Amino acid sequence: MDINTAKQVLDDLERKQFAYHYAMSIIMNDASTVAPPESYESRGVAVGFLSGESFKLSTCAELKEAVAALYADPDNAGEEYFRRAELQNESLRKLSQIPMDEYIAYRELMNTAHVAWLKAKKENDFPLFAPYIRKIIDTQKRFASLTDPDKDPYDVALHEHEEGTSKEYYDRFFDEVKSALIPLIAKIQEKGQPDNSWLKTAYPIEGEKKVSSIVMDAYHLDRNHCSLGETEHPYTSGSSSQDVRLTTHYYEHDPIASIFSVIHEGGHANYELHVDPRFMYNCLGGGASMAMHESQSRFWENYVGRNQGFTNWLWPKFCEIFPEQTAGHTADEFYRCVNRAQPSLVRTEADELTYSLHILIRYEIEKALFDGTLAVEDVPAAWNEKYQDYLGVTVPDDTRGCLQDVHWSQGSFGYFPTYSLGTAYSAQILHQLRKELDFDGLVAANDLQPILDWLAERIYRFGRLKKPGTFVPDITGEPFTAKYYTDYLTEKYSALYNL
Amino acid sequence: MDINTAKQVLDDLERKQFAYHYAMSIIMNDASTVAPPESYESRGVAVGFLSGESFKLSTCAELKEAVAALYADPDNAGEEYFRRAELQNESLRKLSQIPMDEYIAYRELMNTAHVAWLKAKKENDFPLFAPYIRKIIDTQKRFASLTDPDKDPYDVALHEHEEGTSKEYYDRFFDEVKSALIPLIAKIQEKGQPDNSWLKTAYPIEGEKKVSSIVMDAYHLDRNHCSLGETEHPYTSGSSSQDVRLTTHYYEHDPIASIFSVIHEGGHANYELHVDPRFMYNCLGGGASMAMHESQSRFWENYVGRNQGFTNWLWPKFCEIFPEQTAGHTADEFYRCVNRAQPSLVRTEADELTYSLHILIRYEIEKALFDGTLAVEDVPAAWNEKYQDYLGVTVPDDTRGCLQDVHWSQGSFGYFPTYSLGTAYSAQILHQLRKELDFDGLVAANDLQPILDWLAERIYRFGRLKKPGTFVPDITGEPFTAKYYTDYLTEKYSALYNL
Repeated sequence: MDINTAKQVLDDLERKQFAYHYAMSIIMNDASTVAPPESYESRGVAVGFLSGESFKLSTCAELKEAVAALYADPDNAGEEYFRRAELQNESLRKLSQIPMDEYIAYRELMNTAHVAWLKAKKENDFPLFAPYIRKIIDTQKRFASLTDPDKDPYDVALHEHEEGTSKEYYDRFFDEVKSALIPLIAKIQEKGQPDNSWLKTAYPIEGEKKVSSIVMDAYHLDRNHCSLGETEHPYTSGSSSQDVRLTTHYYEHDPIASIFSVIHEGGHANYELHVDPRFMYNCLGGGASMAMHESQSRFWENYVGRNQGFTNWLWPKFCEIFPEQTAGHTADEFYRCVNRAQPSLVRTEADELTYSLHILIRYEIEKALFDGTLAVEDVPAAWNEKYQDYLGVTVPDDTRGCLQDVHWSQGSFGYFPTYSLGTAYSAQILHQLRKELDFDGLVAANDLQPILDWLAERIYRFGRLKKPGTFVPDITGEPFTAKYYTDYLTEKYSALYNL
Repeated sequence: MDINTAKQVLDDLERKQFAYHYAMSIIMNDASTVAPPESYESRGVAVGFLSGESFKLSTCAELKEAVAALYADPDNAGEEYFRRAELQNESLRKLSQIPMDEYIAYRELMNTAHVAWLKAKKENDFPLFAPYIRKIIDTQKRFASLTDPDKDPYDVALHEHEEGTSKEYYDRFFDEVKSALIPLIAKIQEKGQPDNSWLKTAYPIEGEKKVSSIVMDAYHLDRNHCSLGETEHPYTSGSSSQDVRLTTHYYEHDPIASIFSVIHEGGHANYELHVDPRFMYNCLGGGASMAMHESQSRFWENYVGRNQGFTNWLWPKFCEIFPEQTAGHTADEFYRCVNRAQPSLVRTEADELTYSLHILIRYEIEKALFDGTLAVEDVPAAWNEKYQDYLGVTVPDDTRGCLQDVHWSQGSFGYFPTYSLGTAYSAQILHQLRKELDFDGLVAANDLQPILDWLAERIYRFGRLKKPGTFVPDITGEPFTAKYYTDYLTEKYSALYNL
């Protein structure tokens, strides 16, 4: 196939891949937000068929031929087509080892697993969900044995979520993080905590929705291309840079939870919304990797959202909506409360400091599940023990324990570590950004556009064009290190708690 | 192809058709409810591709062969497979005359037309929407010239929405309806109207949502399989008997509107939810026809919902939610107000009596648009003139005039008349039901299950197995006549207004 034909074929097939991706994304978003609870069977039939068609498209001879032609001729392919060929090549390598019927069965399994997780979480019934975890891990191990027979299956899962990572990589990373955080957390535990009981009284949901709206505007989330829904577990799904959905969860007795969910998901959304529109219908659309995506959600959530400049700006607006609940309190208290570092049960509501320990627990459990040293039925016990050991908290039930996260029901083993890695990526990126912009001044003035532009220019617009591991070195001129992340936490929390 | 192979092939292909139908239905539901306003371009790309794939499937040689084998051998096909072959045959006859690229372009046009209509309605800007009407009618005429060259194109549209109907059929039907309604409406105009100003004060939306929920429970709408959303124009979309979505619209100054929207759409939903589950993944799923569907939405909305037994039952619940707004008023006033027959601007909020005149106006305009005696740009003038002539009301703007309905933006020319026809169908069905059940007693006791069961047994469970025109004769033992409809209205409104 000549190079120009190959380009045309790739354009055409990736546009079709987009259509399936779009349909699946909307169906899954619908399933998580408004679909009736017992509608999953017919959805499973549709998803199974569409997955099969998408699989056929993504492994067809025409695609293989076009990809081979482009991959063999980088000069004439040019940067963009070559990168697309590279990404398709890796996908082809994997998919062509997996029997289509097993692939479809796996997609159908995801559909029912999600429903089972929702029910299990609601009813605090881990045994209901356990068979799905078993089935998902077995399938992932089987797929790994087909696609990467010489590699450890959890290494395959980690690499799948962040190119170039492995157990060895993360073990080293978490050792570094742990050695800085554990003593810091211990010191803070000896200090008094700011009283946040006034933020646990009744805050009407309608008011929380108004705050969400203010926050979305503050973060320049373009409502013409981005809508906000409600789900058990907040998430963002982007089907194109023109169409992004984020969700949140409102708790009457925790108005802070939804604020930071919206900001976190808004970070993901702004990433998707700023990918070069030229990539909309090809495989360069979307974020570069999971860790790069999390680097941005966590950047906006923590480095901007939990910055005193932002909490000071939000405070009078918050007071106006909740005058009774906030009476007698101050902006400074608000700042200290949203940054209270106290070991807790639920990851998505954890503070910046203890957050990575929540991730570490999941990482260790996943490792043990994959290497067989932990049986699925023993997950609750292992979970509860680790929460006691690392965070000193007693898990009262599996709903607030090992059933709290949606990820396993979506087959996302190997995803969690990218949250910590991404947060560390973005600490290093922030360090560079501060050299170029008056970061704190801009945040304090709620003038976030220059920060958004800076990140869009250096990260978002590239979509998947650049390899994920190249962003930090390219932006900062240094190899990645966790040091900026641990330094940032040490400095911030030493000041907050007068250590 | 032997008959057993043909059955298997049909099962397999219709399951695939279901998957496309499901994806499109979810995408369209998403588009109408929560999709960001400017996300239509990427949706159009996806919908265009999926329509093309669905078109290929629905015209493929294998389907033709299977359908031919079954259609030629009714005895061995059996009732269900024969009916499926009959329906596929008609679809094949039509689709095989339409070029695929024109079909895809038409589906993409629907996507953008809907967006344009939303904007035009919001901004009272008919010229913005006019080109879409022109394009849709041109395309429909072109398709009709290909599929049914010897027929009048509006007759083709009418038949498409209700098998066996035509301009001649509806002209006769509407003459009969008009001759009963016009004098009745005139007599009522001379009478005093119940004061409904207390139902136009401020009713908080949160309270209206509670009423919706009570109403959904009263009508046995199974929340496990049926969810309620909000849209500019209420509708129901059923992708399977396991998954039905209805929507409503809340108006702060008209709490009655959403009650009857929910009941109307709930009638559609209950129809879909009670189709035999065996038809879920084949072409017998869904309602028998548009008029049969509307017969059920209008049955529940009017014959049940506007029955004094039901309004009496609802009244104390309504008062409990809106104690201030309802203070000093009575159940009898409530009944009279929800049945106030007064010519008005908006079809979906019209009373039972004047409703068919709204339909007649649309029918006459569509006829004139199709036969070329009315130009699209003159629709607003024609609309306003007819509202003045038939209903005596002055249309203040196109938003409340010719832009009020979603239908044209979805290409549903020929749909409106089925509302009146369906209402007349169900009046005759109600007449029979009253012979077999204590209808008023059951409604007064809010014991609607026996009524639902009766309708499910005689109508809903059949899906598309029976031809739409056979229901009324089979259920009532008489040919269809508009007489029961006009008699019902005459009797009800004579009592209400002491004529």
